[in-house]
Amino acid sequence: MFLLFTDFGWRGPYVGQVKAVLATRCPTHPIIDLMHDAAAFRPREAGYLLAAIAHWIKPAAVIVAVVDPGVGTERRAIAATLDGRWFVGPDNGLLAPTINAAAVDRRVFALPIPGGVSASFHGRDVFAPAAAELAICGRIADQCEIVDWVGRDLPADTDRIVYIDGYGNVLTGRRAATLSRGVGPVVSGQPIIEARTFADVAPGIVFWYRNSLGLVEIAVNQGNAAQRFGLEVGDSLCFQTIT
Amino acid sequence: MFLLFTDFGWRGPYVGQVKAVLATRCPTHPIIDLMHDAAAFRPREAGYLLAAIAHWIKPAAVIVAVVDPGVGTERRAIAATLDGRWFVGPDNGLLAPTINAAAVDRRVFALPIPGGVSASFHGRDVFAPAAAELAICGRIADQCEIVDWVGRDLPADTDRIVYIDGYGNVLTGRRAATLSRGVGPVVSGQPIIEARTFADVAPGIVFWYRNSLGLVEIAVNQGNAAQRFGLEVGDSLCFQTIT
Amino acid sequence: MFLLFTDFGWRGPYVGQVKAVLATRCPTHPIIDLMHDAAAFRPREAGYLLAAIAHWIKPAAVIVAVVDPGVGTERRAIAATLDGRWFVGPDNGLLAPTINAAAVDRRVFALPIPGGVSASFHGRDVFAPAAAELAICGRIADQCEIVDWVGRDLPADTDRIVYIDGYGNVLTGRRAATLSRGVGPVVSGQPIIEARTFADVAPGIVFWYRNSLGLVEIAVNQGNAAQRFGLEVGDSLCFQTIT
Repeated sequence: MFLLFTDFGWRGPYVGQVKAVLATRCPTHPIIDLMHDAAAFRPREAGYLLAAIAHWIKPAAVIVAVVDPGVGTERRAIAATLDGRWFVGPDNGLLAPTINAAAVDRRVFALPIPGGVSASFHGRDVFAPAAAELAICGRIADQCEIVDWVGRDLPADTDRIVYIDGYGNVLTGRRAATLSRGVGPVVSGQPIIEARTFADVAPGIVFWYRNSLGLVEIAVNQGNAAQRFGLEVGDSLCFQTIT
Repeated sequence: MFLLFTDFGWRGPYVGQVKAVLATRCPTHPIIDLMHDAAAFRPREAGYLLAAIAHWIKPAAVIVAVVDPGVGTERRAIAATLDGRWFVGPDNGLLAPTINAAAVDRRVFALPIPGGVSASFHGRDVFAPAAAELAICGRIADQCEIVDWVGRDLPADTDRIVYIDGYGNVLTGRRAATLSRGVGPVVSGQPIIEARTFADVAPGIVFWYRNSLGLVEIAVNQGNAAQRFGLEVGDSLCFQTIT
Repeated sequence: MFLLFTDFGWRGPYVGQVKAVLATRCPTHPIIDLMHDAAAFRPREAGYLLAAIAHWIKPAAVIVAVVDPGVGTERRAIAATLDGRWFVGPDNGLLAPTINAAAVDRRVFALPIPGGVSASFHGRDVFAPAAAELAICGRIADQCEIVDWVGRDLPADTDRIVYIDGYGNVLTGRRAATLSRGVGPVVSGQPIIEARTFADVAPGIVFWYRNSLGLVEIAVNQGNAAQRFGLEVGDSLCFQTIT
């Protein structure tokens, strides 16, 4: 199974070409679009969201992750085997939170970038072929194990906003399980109450909850939390005792 | 074959996670996105569109339908076997027009909601696992047949708008075959003429036609019918003799 | 493998129904969405983009291409076998640049349009069934070879804009390899410099480059080229010696 995580969006021939490469080489492997609106050009923030999703993905998948503003420059391409899953992407911090979280069973490799590939579309020309090779034989030709990927020392959580979904719900890079009881986010000086789910608060009420990925998420029942507070990906939040 | 019908939209990691659950458990079953912009938070209207699409779907599919503003509350989850196809979703009226239309061969079951699942994402945690179980073995563990689903007494057609597509075409929940000859919709006091297809009227002309699902649809050739009349999902239309 | 190239967009039940037809008849064939925002209602421009993508697609695929403002009229439906791949779509010029480019191994057939199909959705009712038939048995029943498809005499390149992607990058129908050294596009009287990739110019700089499909593409690093110059699909560009 291939899982795609990118900032390509759904417009244009970009996602389709990546999938055509995968399906041509591995026609019996399902190809799943995990998401294509990861934080554009922001591999650090997108990386924390990927780590939260990856935590929940069962083994035996090859995840192709591309948020890659440095495509065509000298940045490395890497592949990592983590607890039975493979991750492929640029070495710009995007994969770091996921790699760092896999303390037990991890190996990271520099991917060769073949000559003659396009300078602007490594998703199709570098990452998809590498992912297909991993799905078929479980290894990369000319592999070179590395120990110094970009973001190796990043903390396990970030208090920044890592994603805002189509409803205006605000996802942070902080896992709810890391918070002490009664601690929650403060936004624009307003302490945010905790709830279990949307239906537990009245329409228009802002709350935070442990979302289905385990992250602290700020939402408004039948409303748009990001618009209400003018929040954007990359903004920092404070956490303090709320109750 | 799995078919997905939701109001999740294409943004975020929501559809992708549902598909990852299905592909992990049933890697050889195709997964088709039927649509992800069903009328948001409006299971009744979305349900009539689903029934029109389902009428056209051949047997041997498992349809996962999720328009579910009550997720996390006490609303039931249900599965229905209808003429050889399985439907899975919340018991909030979304499946009712489809179930009601299958008078001959139908059985409806309450789905168990396991403990420990997320309160906010039953698409991933309840409906997708149930759909996979149905695709694999054709039955739900701990099944409980019911006879009182929400919307059991809904009429077979509705004169409300059930969907507005990306071109501004207005789909009603009224099957064209139920109208007498010469009868058509009246919008804002204007009787709408019938045509066979877009190319049969001049650009800018408003008309109604029997669309490819068999529903009464109001459109403007090379224009936007919803904008012209200020129509929204849920609005009621009148039908009267036009010619 | 099926590849879909349409102007249907991602909204509504249209793409999903095409895919349901394909998956029902050919459940083991991958179905890939190449793109669904080809230039709407403009088969000529979309056709040059399709030809550029098709040039890059490996054999053994069936490509379903639908940009079809004349659906329901007398326009023909065609299928073409080109260097081992099959293309299916309306005979309105959309397939012409692709067919014309396959000088060595090509045969073009008129597709029968069965009675009783919907007048508005030949993607589902005509092209998808024909594509499934080609994928299964490699031929169309009742085939009729033709030599006079619409657009047979179109040039191999066009200096018009054929697509504007979600970032505002402007794709022309001109293959970069056809330009003499030092020749580039002029937009609103401004000669555009060439670069190898986005990272080679400063933010805000407009440039053209040979994109990953081999076409001349005009872009602004971290900006929107279409908005800056007010460009739209169908606009013509001039090419002249720049340096």
